[in-house]
Amino acid sequence: MENQTQKKKVPHMTITRLAQYLNCLSLLPREHYKEISSKELAEKIGLKPTVIRQDFHHFGGFGQAGYRYKVTNLIEGLERILGLDQKQNLIIIGVGHLGQALANYRNFDKLGLRLVGLFDVNPRLIGITIRDVRVRDIDEVPTVVERENVHIGIITTPADSAQSTANLLIESGVKGIWNFSPMNVTGPSGIIIQNEHLSIGMMTLSYQLKQMLPPLSASSEY
Amino acid sequence: MENQTQKKKVPHMTITRLAQYLNCLSLLPREHYKEISSKELAEKIGLKPTVIRQDFHHFGGFGQAGYRYKVTNLIEGLERILGLDQKQNLIIIGVGHLGQALANYRNFDKLGLRLVGLFDVNPRLIGITIRDVRVRDIDEVPTVVERENVHIGIITTPADSAQSTANLLIESGVKGIWNFSPMNVTGPSGIIIQNEHLSIGMMTLSYQLKQMLPPLSASSEY
Repeated sequence: MENQTQKKKVPHMTITRLAQYLNCLSLLPREHYKEISSKELAEKIGLKPTVIRQDFHHFGGFGQAGYRYKVTNLIEGLERILGLDQKQNLIIIGVGHLGQALANYRNFDKLGLRLVGLFDVNPRLIGITIRDVRVRDIDEVPTVVERENVHIGIITTPADSAQSTANLLIESGVKGIWNFSPMNVTGPSGIIIQNEHLSIGMMTLSYQLKQMLPPLSASSEY
Repeated sequence: MENQTQKKKVPHMTITRLAQYLNCLSLLPREHYKEISSKELAEKIGLKPTVIRQDFHHFGGFGQAGYRYKVTNLIEGLERILGLDQKQNLIIIGVGHLGQALANYRNFDKLGLRLVGLFDVNPRLIGITIRDVRVRDIDEVPTVVERENVHIGIITTPADSAQSTANLLIESGVKGIWNFSPMNVTGPSGIIIQNEHLSIGMMTLSYQLKQMLPPLSASSEY
């Protein structure tokens, strides 16, 4: 694989697709997929092969057009582009159901992410341990962020405390926020914020179902 | 708003964006936003106003270019397009942390979704109640799907039982599957499958962090 010689702004959709490629490749049984063509990868994801080749072109192409890619090379290259080759420490604020689900999400390990802190305001949760990490009072966020060199904070609080939680994370020195609360959070430039909305996946599913299922009444417009 | 007079294939990305628009609009404080321009909405989401107008154009445009949209009209229109005006019954299979988080996800109500069944294979979970829904043995899926006219099944099982769970849902008559297991599931044509990968959000965050943070060593390529 060639090096990326110039730093150009890569479209956000390309990055999202690179993440999809890596996700798809890492799910393939290695013994059957030592090599893969852009056509095969495209079919698995439901994209055109040209889209994949254009995306790879931003990063030197991963090899010549028409050739098959070595899957291990492709995975390593994508991991490096996406920054997953560098270990990152993360914390989760809000240890309700979703916070606990994410704390138990084994795939974070594969992404080079290490959970080093869990925080909540609920005294009934403070002190319990999930995957060897003790839940602490939210007041301790600044101390842990500094001591553990935490770059990423996950917000799984209720909507009405999401922004104040984001502010606390940013003041503590966190550079990237992954927000799962239903309310968007914002921050100053230089802070990366990913607002995740689970309902968007459900809405697109709902749309597709609507196209397929018969309307409920004759007067339905669609 | 004009009617959609012809059934044309709408690009998948348009549908995803419509879901984003609806999500954004529904988070706005109603008292301050009775009307909104495509420019204002675009700024909130980080898109170009022309993209929004093009997306709306697929569905009659929601009004004339240059005018402000009435927020309540826009929300109602988007809900209708996305099929959220029709109540749907759903079940969740896999009552681990993520399954419990989704079972407690209040936003489903807003999307017109009604949780009518929770299923697991773990005898320790069978019989417990979450939001008035009792966890049942997975063997009871076909009965509940038929009795409650369930169209949507959510899979939150471990990866190695995701496909067999999808098969069970499809055989039972479910038309749409929202799969949260890390393994993609497939089904015959006519079945809508949305594979949700939480790690993709984290990967795009990781990429953006990498662009911003200094490299760990001088030999790092990026």
